[in-house]
Amino acid sequence: MIQTPYLLFLGDAPDMLAAKVAIGIRDWRPDHAVGQFRLPGCGADLGLADMDLAQARAAGAKTLVIGVANRGGVISKEWKKVLVTALEEGFDLAAGLHNLLRDEPDLVAVAQATGRTLHDVRVPEVKYPIADGKPRTGKRCLAVGTDCSVGKMYTAMAMEREMRTRGMKATFRATGQTGILITGDGVPLDAVIADFMAGSIEWLTPDNDPDHWDLIEGQGSLFHVSYSGVTLALIHGGQPDALILCHEPTRTHMRGLPDYQPPSLQTLMDTALPLARIANSACQVVGVSVNTQHMPEDDARAYLEKVEADMNLPATDPYRFGAAKLAEALAAI
Amino acid sequence: MIQTPYLLFLGDAPDMLAAKVAIGIRDWRPDHAVGQFRLPGCGADLGLADMDLAQARAAGAKTLVIGVANRGGVISKEWKKVLVTALEEGFDLAAGLHNLLRDEPDLVAVAQATGRTLHDVRVPEVKYPIADGKPRTGKRCLAVGTDCSVGKMYTAMAMEREMRTRGMKATFRATGQTGILITGDGVPLDAVIADFMAGSIEWLTPDNDPDHWDLIEGQGSLFHVSYSGVTLALIHGGQPDALILCHEPTRTHMRGLPDYQPPSLQTLMDTALPLARIANSACQVVGVSVNTQHMPEDDARAYLEKVEADMNLPATDPYRFGAAKLAEALAAI
Repeated sequence: MIQTPYLLFLGDAPDMLAAKVAIGIRDWRPDHAVGQFRLPGCGADLGLADMDLAQARAAGAKTLVIGVANRGGVISKEWKKVLVTALEEGFDLAAGLHNLLRDEPDLVAVAQATGRTLHDVRVPEVKYPIADGKPRTGKRCLAVGTDCSVGKMYTAMAMEREMRTRGMKATFRATGQTGILITGDGVPLDAVIADFMAGSIEWLTPDNDPDHWDLIEGQGSLFHVSYSGVTLALIHGGQPDALILCHEPTRTHMRGLPDYQPPSLQTLMDTALPLARIANSACQVVGVSVNTQHMPEDDARAYLEKVEADMNLPATDPYRFGAAKLAEALAAI
Repeated sequence: MIQTPYLLFLGDAPDMLAAKVAIGIRDWRPDHAVGQFRLPGCGADLGLADMDLAQARAAGAKTLVIGVANRGGVISKEWKKVLVTALEEGFDLAAGLHNLLRDEPDLVAVAQATGRTLHDVRVPEVKYPIADGKPRTGKRCLAVGTDCSVGKMYTAMAMEREMRTRGMKATFRATGQTGILITGDGVPLDAVIADFMAGSIEWLTPDNDPDHWDLIEGQGSLFHVSYSGVTLALIHGGQPDALILCHEPTRTHMRGLPDYQPPSLQTLMDTALPLARIANSACQVVGVSVNTQHMPEDDARAYLEKVEADMNLPATDPYRFGAAKLAEALAAI
């Protein structure tokens, strides 16, 4: 568990695209973001207060989160200087970089000397159990996609916010590095050892109040041959009561697989639901989340209407039109 | 790749059950087994020549394989003495124990000093790629089960032998520790990091002659919630042209999951085939392998006849009645 709140390190990010993780924290956990730390030449700006390390400590920040993708996969000298000083000034560090914090001997030495913690959220820090498949109290919802990167994390985040606004009990459960950095906790599922994947998701979504919903972040796709095993472990470990189908209609092939076509929403439903019912016979598909970012608004609305008619399910783009329909669908279960 | 042939270390195994790995090597790769090494009190006997280390070296043995499950999960003092001497006398060591050879400082030190290799087949020794889903030349067959431990490895091994006897090109591809120790090579799939599971199977089953069959060892089951993700990665990484359905009819619940029932063979086929066709649209289910060890012979034959009639597929118990029907099914593709 990463200590909050955070100071968001933007470094020398060339643009906002490179600051995806920091933007996620600002948007979804604004209470976690005390301020931003930028190096000279930084092209990203989250609109948060610029703070140095001392100011951020005074404002209560406990962890410096590297909220940017670094260049060339390495931690630069300029970054390193800030990271070492942050440890000395009492910050923990958290990052999802390929270049692990723990692989930098100077960071390890300073962290040990100062008693601070280095969080590499790409690497599991827990010894997960093997899944036992036992039913758990409380309810769980999982977003499954026709492809990778179609908006599954965003959908679960937007549903959590909408449900909490309505007074429902809801918790986003992160299964990827961005989600873990945003919420401070979760399972880096793509880095878990095969035998423990489903068990890690059981661990992440334990017994809860009967009217509490875990909104489990989806990963991969049953139709994406590189990562489908991860997706099925999520379905069987999560034991979802409800599935949300996620889709990006303009995609011409599966992400990174030029010769593979995304399935239809109907095919996704026909494939995912029987598999989900192996672990939870009561599982239902309750709604559709469409990522319409590449469609004009009229086309997007027309597409959603057609999906609702074809699938007989509520459909929305939670980013563009809100997650109300999906929250209502869960409230009705 | 483990150097063959082997001296099979049976240690102080209390009985034959504890010597499962050694039995597999003797049965499936007799050319790999130069002899057996037994400690006083050993209750297992493979019927091979008893040899000491010097005799086995003289007979050409290159690796001492720990062919037994050890007691309490630790390498005992009695074992250690033999293992150290074996390294000193020029043997590599290979084991699939929870207690890794590499975690024993004295073994590591002697192996370094003597230039020998310690093979812990539970632990991947290769940096596998992420699967790219590209079609590969040659043909592949995968055994999928209604449950774990229904005879998938045995089925693939028996098919390999039968096909080779018929002059067909066939290679068993190990995906578990026992299979790796038997053949000297393979992928310990249950220990692979989630993101690389499917890629490891692509790596294991590369381009080959058009008439060559890889017989891929199955793992888990799509219906076993603890391990289903591993199974789907195997289906999508393996891109099988042919599936063999494996079943154990007397099982009353899924292995280790008392509240889960095994599916019917029809349900297994209806689930596995569409998933396999995502990666290989030409995939077919070509036969059924039934583990009838808990059935009298008349019942077994009647059961197989019923399966053939119900499924319209050849069905056999390859252990009891041979793998000819399954080899013929592949020859017909």
